[in-house]
Amino acid sequence: MAQKPSIPKGTRDFGPQEMARRNYIFNTIREVYKLYGFQQIETPAMENLSVLMGKYGEEGDKLLFKILNSGDFLRDVPAGGLQEGATGRLAAQLCEKGLRYDLTVPFARYVVQHREELSLPFRRYQIQPVWRADRPQKGRYREFYQCDADVVGSDSLLNEVELIHIMDTVFGRLGIRVCIKVNNRKILSGIAELIGAADKIVDITVAIDKLDKIGLEGVNEELRQDGLTEEQIARLQPIIAMEGSNEQKIATMREALAQSEVGQKGLDEVAFVLARVGDVASQVQLDLTLARGLDYYTGCIFEVKALDVQIGSITGGGRYDNLTGIFGMPGLSGVGISFGADRIYDVMGQLNLYPEALATSTQLLFLNFGELEADYCLPLLHQVRRAGISAEIYPDSAKLKKQMQYANARMIPFVAMAGEDEVKAGEITLKNMVTGQQERIKPEILLEKLK
Amino acid sequence: MAQKPSIPKGTRDFGPQEMARRNYIFNTIREVYKLYGFQQIETPAMENLSVLMGKYGEEGDKLLFKILNSGDFLRDVPAGGLQEGATGRLAAQLCEKGLRYDLTVPFARYVVQHREELSLPFRRYQIQPVWRADRPQKGRYREFYQCDADVVGSDSLLNEVELIHIMDTVFGRLGIRVCIKVNNRKILSGIAELIGAADKIVDITVAIDKLDKIGLEGVNEELRQDGLTEEQIARLQPIIAMEGSNEQKIATMREALAQSEVGQKGLDEVAFVLARVGDVASQVQLDLTLARGLDYYTGCIFEVKALDVQIGSITGGGRYDNLTGIFGMPGLSGVGISFGADRIYDVMGQLNLYPEALATSTQLLFLNFGELEADYCLPLLHQVRRAGISAEIYPDSAKLKKQMQYANARMIPFVAMAGEDEVKAGEITLKNMVTGQQERIKPEILLEKLK
Repeated sequence: MAQKPSIPKGTRDFGPQEMARRNYIFNTIREVYKLYGFQQIETPAMENLSVLMGKYGEEGDKLLFKILNSGDFLRDVPAGGLQEGATGRLAAQLCEKGLRYDLTVPFARYVVQHREELSLPFRRYQIQPVWRADRPQKGRYREFYQCDADVVGSDSLLNEVELIHIMDTVFGRLGIRVCIKVNNRKILSGIAELIGAADKIVDITVAIDKLDKIGLEGVNEELRQDGLTEEQIARLQPIIAMEGSNEQKIATMREALAQSEVGQKGLDEVAFVLARVGDVASQVQLDLTLARGLDYYTGCIFEVKALDVQIGSITGGGRYDNLTGIFGMPGLSGVGISFGADRIYDVMGQLNLYPEALATSTQLLFLNFGELEADYCLPLLHQVRRAGISAEIYPDSAKLKKQMQYANARMIPFVAMAGEDEVKAGEITLKNMVTGQQERIKPEILLEKLK
Repeated sequence: MAQKPSIPKGTRDFGPQEMARRNYIFNTIREVYKLYGFQQIETPAMENLSVLMGKYGEEGDKLLFKILNSGDFLRDVPAGGLQEGATGRLAAQLCEKGLRYDLTVPFARYVVQHREELSLPFRRYQIQPVWRADRPQKGRYREFYQCDADVVGSDSLLNEVELIHIMDTVFGRLGIRVCIKVNNRKILSGIAELIGAADKIVDITVAIDKLDKIGLEGVNEELRQDGLTEEQIARLQPIIAMEGSNEQKIATMREALAQSEVGQKGLDEVAFVLARVGDVASQVQLDLTLARGLDYYTGCIFEVKALDVQIGSITGGGRYDNLTGIFGMPGLSGVGISFGADRIYDVMGQLNLYPEALATSTQLLFLNFGELEADYCLPLLHQVRRAGISAEIYPDSAKLKKQMQYANARMIPFVAMAGEDEVKAGEITLKNMVTGQQERIKPEILLEKLK
């Protein structure tokens, strides 16, 4: 065991400074969710694999972390089962449980399981880690937090308006300038109809979704591979390239999709939502190329881009008409968003947006000059804490230099010293670690000096 | 999938009310930890099994949740390896990672891995879930939170004093009357020496630790089975039964352990700590029968019992002289405590100690009488939120009865109504859901009315 211990690849330890910054982000999101009337829930890290499997596509199934059954985990493996090499089936025999892959499927499971207790519409938020056996790379981890808010049990587009306001408020409070992109799956369906490829709607959205990453030529090439004709691709070009105000885009699309009932419905929805967003600090932009990869979206979709940093989307979401249907409870519409805490963390760091106060935790350190002197300090220490001020005493009577190094490393702004002299005089020396100034004071005015 | 989905046995969903209560407990503990200068860290849910195995005894190894390797998990299994039925060895071939079992071993791993970045003494706190494949039963779960604080890198007994103050402050803030029991492993070693059974110290502590559960006769029977003679057991009786003040117990033990160097050392330590605890609200009691099961404690040990509820200990801890030694970093002493959040949750419920305000989240609900009326309410809704007051609009123009039911179920104290009349008059009707009173007001005074 002389080797330095390590953690699994793709996972992270968070030290005090990182925690202070992460908590700042989580608390900001949590406060806004609460301000908008969302209620918190938490679900177990482990779900039954029957709940998770088949919900994230074939690729997603492979990325689930599976938990070996306790005790005799071979009990369900038939003789010879291990030889076959069919790891998929064998995994199902060895494992009943897996770690949650996102917060959406556990939420759908929660709603179905607790339906009798819930007052619909149910506005819930959930901030918990999820796990994916992805290949780790820069900015992609095997354990990361999601911060989701969803409204389930209401078709009203006011929910979409609310979610846009939440995104605007959160990023406003964090100080990140953003563009909130909005689109609607029904408009995309209308476009697919328009070019005579209604059956290819999924392929088209998947291809268009990559515009940011692979550029227009890349998208067109992918559409070709999906079997679209050159004429169909050509008819998509003006839509993909469309510029102008939200109103102009809607007007243009009203005409282009004149024949498509679903397309008009999508435009109605987007127009309703955009008209009610009102005066917000963020840009709110109708982006007809926004598609979002996930199958289950059926109405409005959202994505947030930071304006001042090159990075993928930092928040996303949309409406899904039938998420709980997979658990036998059809007809419940939902709409939600998910803040990407890890990317927001990176953006905040690059833009230097963390409040300075986050670096400081303890306000006052009592130095330790020996047992007698420490005993003199203890009642003062308690007095400071009773006033709500975070304080410590250095526990050992170590060399002064070492104690001062500790105060500096911890960025503690005030140090209190009581040596033989101070104890005799019933006083204390208070040093301001920022200015370097120090003064000898009566303990009675210590609290005053710290404020 | 028509069957209602479920969660793995021993795990729990937490709904909004439970979350509000749990957060109240966690936040109280967190605030006190911060007040005492402790810094937060988080470690990954998954640790390498090489870090976890062998740290919790043979039984503990069996209770670790192991995670099936991703991809071809059979790659390390030799031909025929699956037939042998040696599930222990096979598990090691199928799994490299496991879920953390407590926060102490990951903390020790963290300290060793990050030693260069840390300013010692390191005061850390950590509030995260842990997982154990225990047989689920009332009050025992397979996923539960631990709330730990430890100081590592300091031998000073002032740390013990600080931890007692933390326990006193937390339970004071929560309103739970407690007895903080203190003992010292060195005293127990002295006692074992005294009766001529120094080699049986572990057996003796394990037996004495069960006094609460199995009574004096049960303890004596277990000591007999451990091989202690009747004479040895007889000599233990006055110690186990000792009553009186802390000072009296110390004085009695000073004499009884006059020949034991380690025993005197333990008494010195306990006397130092108890003399410095000073004036606290909790009972602080030297309990010579307190042993704590865990092997790694070497000095002071603590346990907290609620005075007004029959339940096991709700917090525990102690000093361990060599926790990081298992990871190749010897000589680092630590001392820590762990609050048992689940038991505290139960105690708070039984004693009805949760603040009433926890039941309320949203303060104001705007009812929805249709599109036009809702549009009239939206700017008011934003105004209320800008003032920091949590508010919602019912998203659908459902029947009034349904909307009022929602307000009641959510325990929302105020409801705002704007029908055709109010919209025309530029007013709003505000209803106090507690008193039932309602009045029509100008929107300008809405905020005032809510305060």
